[in-house]
Amino acid sequence: MNKSMIRFILGKVLLLEAAMMLLPSVVAALYMEKDGFSFLISALICVAVSLLLSHKKPTDTTIYLKEGCVSTALSWILMSIFGCLPFVISGAIPSFTDALFETISGFTTTGASILSDVEALSHCMIFWRSFTHWIGGMGVLVFLLAVVPMSGGSNINLMRAESPGPSVGKLVPKMRYTARILYVIYFGMTILQIVLLLVGKMPLFDAVTTAFGTAGTGGFGIKNDSIGSYSAYIQWVTTIFMILFGINFNAYYLLLMKKFKQAFAIEEVRAYLLIILVATGVITFYIMDSCGGFWSGLRHAAFQVGSIITTTGYSTVDFNLWHSVPKTILVILMFVGACAGSTGGGIKVSRFVILFKSMFKELDSYIHPKVVKKIKMDGKPVEHEVVRAVNVFTITYIVLFVVSIFLVSLEGKDLVTSFTAVTATLNNIGPGLELVGPTQNFGHFSILTKYVLMFNMLAGRLELFPLLILFHPALWKDLLHRKKKTKKTNI
Amino acid sequence: MNKSMIRFILGKVLLLEAAMMLLPSVVAALYMEKDGFSFLISALICVAVSLLLSHKKPTDTTIYLKEGCVSTALSWILMSIFGCLPFVISGAIPSFTDALFETISGFTTTGASILSDVEALSHCMIFWRSFTHWIGGMGVLVFLLAVVPMSGGSNINLMRAESPGPSVGKLVPKMRYTARILYVIYFGMTILQIVLLLVGKMPLFDAVTTAFGTAGTGGFGIKNDSIGSYSAYIQWVTTIFMILFGINFNAYYLLLMKKFKQAFAIEEVRAYLLIILVATGVITFYIMDSCGGFWSGLRHAAFQVGSIITTTGYSTVDFNLWHSVPKTILVILMFVGACAGSTGGGIKVSRFVILFKSMFKELDSYIHPKVVKKIKMDGKPVEHEVVRAVNVFTITYIVLFVVSIFLVSLEGKDLVTSFTAVTATLNNIGPGLELVGPTQNFGHFSILTKYVLMFNMLAGRLELFPLLILFHPALWKDLLHRKKKTKKTNI
Repeated sequence: MNKSMIRFILGKVLLLEAAMMLLPSVVAALYMEKDGFSFLISALICVAVSLLLSHKKPTDTTIYLKEGCVSTALSWILMSIFGCLPFVISGAIPSFTDALFETISGFTTTGASILSDVEALSHCMIFWRSFTHWIGGMGVLVFLLAVVPMSGGSNINLMRAESPGPSVGKLVPKMRYTARILYVIYFGMTILQIVLLLVGKMPLFDAVTTAFGTAGTGGFGIKNDSIGSYSAYIQWVTTIFMILFGINFNAYYLLLMKKFKQAFAIEEVRAYLLIILVATGVITFYIMDSCGGFWSGLRHAAFQVGSIITTTGYSTVDFNLWHSVPKTILVILMFVGACAGSTGGGIKVSRFVILFKSMFKELDSYIHPKVVKKIKMDGKPVEHEVVRAVNVFTITYIVLFVVSIFLVSLEGKDLVTSFTAVTATLNNIGPGLELVGPTQNFGHFSILTKYVLMFNMLAGRLELFPLLILFHPALWKDLLHRKKKTKKTNI
Repeated sequence: MNKSMIRFILGKVLLLEAAMMLLPSVVAALYMEKDGFSFLISALICVAVSLLLSHKKPTDTTIYLKEGCVSTALSWILMSIFGCLPFVISGAIPSFTDALFETISGFTTTGASILSDVEALSHCMIFWRSFTHWIGGMGVLVFLLAVVPMSGGSNINLMRAESPGPSVGKLVPKMRYTARILYVIYFGMTILQIVLLLVGKMPLFDAVTTAFGTAGTGGFGIKNDSIGSYSAYIQWVTTIFMILFGINFNAYYLLLMKKFKQAFAIEEVRAYLLIILVATGVITFYIMDSCGGFWSGLRHAAFQVGSIITTTGYSTVDFNLWHSVPKTILVILMFVGACAGSTGGGIKVSRFVILFKSMFKELDSYIHPKVVKKIKMDGKPVEHEVVRAVNVFTITYIVLFVVSIFLVSLEGKDLVTSFTAVTATLNNIGPGLELVGPTQNFGHFSILTKYVLMFNMLAGRLELFPLLILFHPALWKDLLHRKKKTKKTNI
């Protein structure tokens, strides 16, 4: 295993994080907040560790899928540990566990918070919380790919480990340019949202942080009632952008290339929009009486549907108080998730499209046992390998889900709370129902539960396997075995 | 499609049902209950319809998987419709929907009841309810195979449609003898349980009906508190037999053939027993304080675990009142289910073994991408086809589950009730939690919900696809198309 390359990548990631921490310090300077120093101290620590890890460039820069996964998983863990330092150092969140929970929740774009009063935080802290969403949304390693040159074949293995969805789409032959294009689209759309929010007379600070949370499909609100107290215009802008950031970014690239027909033909995107349409329709019907009419009901329904399916987690109302039909629909949408290749979490619409198609294929095989058909998507046959991977992903997802629910149930809280706490973290959503509903927070859980949920958030963001292989005994054998070998050659 | 053969099979099934109805009439005669006449009338109706359907033997007796599935699905539907007639005619359950629910619940060995006071029923009615469990447990078509001669290749297609599990095991080369052996083991074990219950001074009527419910892993209690008021000895006997009837019957055949080593090496059975052991241990730990000590706690834990994992559904205590850990374990066990090739329902342990193995195989493939291994079970490689079928089954199961929960949520009942009502019916268990907990019943649901749950019970018992293909448009096209062809040749 190419350990020196893994170390090198980790070092670069921390350097990147140090750079990121300068932004909240600037915010602190603007608002004259002394919390800003905690960012400078944390950034210095990051730089120091980074130098230790990557002071010499490895001679062999080739990495395989295994190294890609290990680097990705460790990067996310390190990034979160160092990213929570400002909260601890400043005393904004004194408990390390809570600070780590909040940071993992930020980077994984979950948006589940342990804070009961967000508004008590200083501006630079709120900014950092929301900024972690933005970084985590498109992925820190994708960013690294865009700026650090690496040997050709290795890039795809990092990208594959960090990008969501059943298969990685290259937009252009060079992975490095793909990464750059993705970040340009991401940056452009974020700016557009900020401008539109400013048009609606939202203060600049609120507009920037809200856009960060939307773009990363994160969902950390900067007010205690999330987006509830903003105007209808701002709520609609946020709704539309949440839904836009949940779309496969390939579609935007196709639009930029003026391939409109291809962009609008993507089956996953069509299915995603159809689900949103139907869910919004049904929920509007159920809530419009209690929400003061059709239009207000439509707004709240569209907002919550967009927020949940894209796994953002913002809210405008307390949907925990709704009728069981809207609540059931929202719980179902929590699992569906957004499109592959978007910033959203969940199981992903494309996986469901493939699963549904293989279900109907099975039914066909009972009627016409001799006809062997391959599943098609966007006009192209889906490789058996992809179908198999989707199946294994789904099963592993369920296993992790069940084990987590069991561990959380040790708390003795009600079943709906345990169930939706796991659902909301594994799918990177944020709020669940009952004791983790939109007006509640995750602060009341025990330390064990918090670590289980942190694991879920990371597993959800990295789509299980990159994180799970850290527990594979063969990986550790491999690590130890190579060590011995190196020692021998040294002697 | 060989429609005349389907018709013929349906006719034979109804004739069999008429014969079965004579037993409760005998019980009625013994107890001098006038409800007995309703069984005679129903039996006559069955005979009449049977004659209409199968008065002439089809010339071509060959059927394929498609016909096997259609015959099986239609047999179970017809059997339930005619099987509920005694309840309606006698007025014991005046509503047709309720009577049908109770009968489907009986045949599918679910044990979910719409009755709030079982003890108000006459003996012959209670006997019939429990007897449907016994018939449904091993399968009515398997019984038909054992007694009606059919052309060689066709048998396996009927067996495949009705028998639970990812692959059909032939005990002996001839399907007909396999069916006979299965029924002999089934009958023998039922008798053994009755004898052991009688030893514990249980009245004969109670012993027979309780054994029917245990053998079929059904769970209709004959008392309002299920098995709660019987002695500890009787509870232990029932526990052990529930667990025994949840074991793959192949194991018993191997034992009869004195192949002890092979019998005890079956991986599925080992996994099944291990799960029971662990679950019982953990639950005992949680409930022993409130249950009056270790032994009493162990008894209730073992009983409930055995009852739920085998999808029987008997109860000795109201587990809805337990701590959230035991409750979560029971809900998880509801999905696991018993062994393939047993009378139990659920997803089946063997499917989980295969799913777990493919999950670990995937993790391995990240570490050693070039090594291609096949999953093994009981020392033999599992065919890709079986793995694929297991995956598709699991996915279809989840889809049906989610759709059903949505339909049940239209009632506006709490999420735990909706969730466990679907869980308890789709897995053929019986009781769930909250409003469908062990001391509650299913009578309070709307007609829509009742039909959704009836569909779930049938889908669960027939393992989805045989029932679902009835909704495949190609099947109906096929039926209509052939009709035209036949007409043409007639002209």
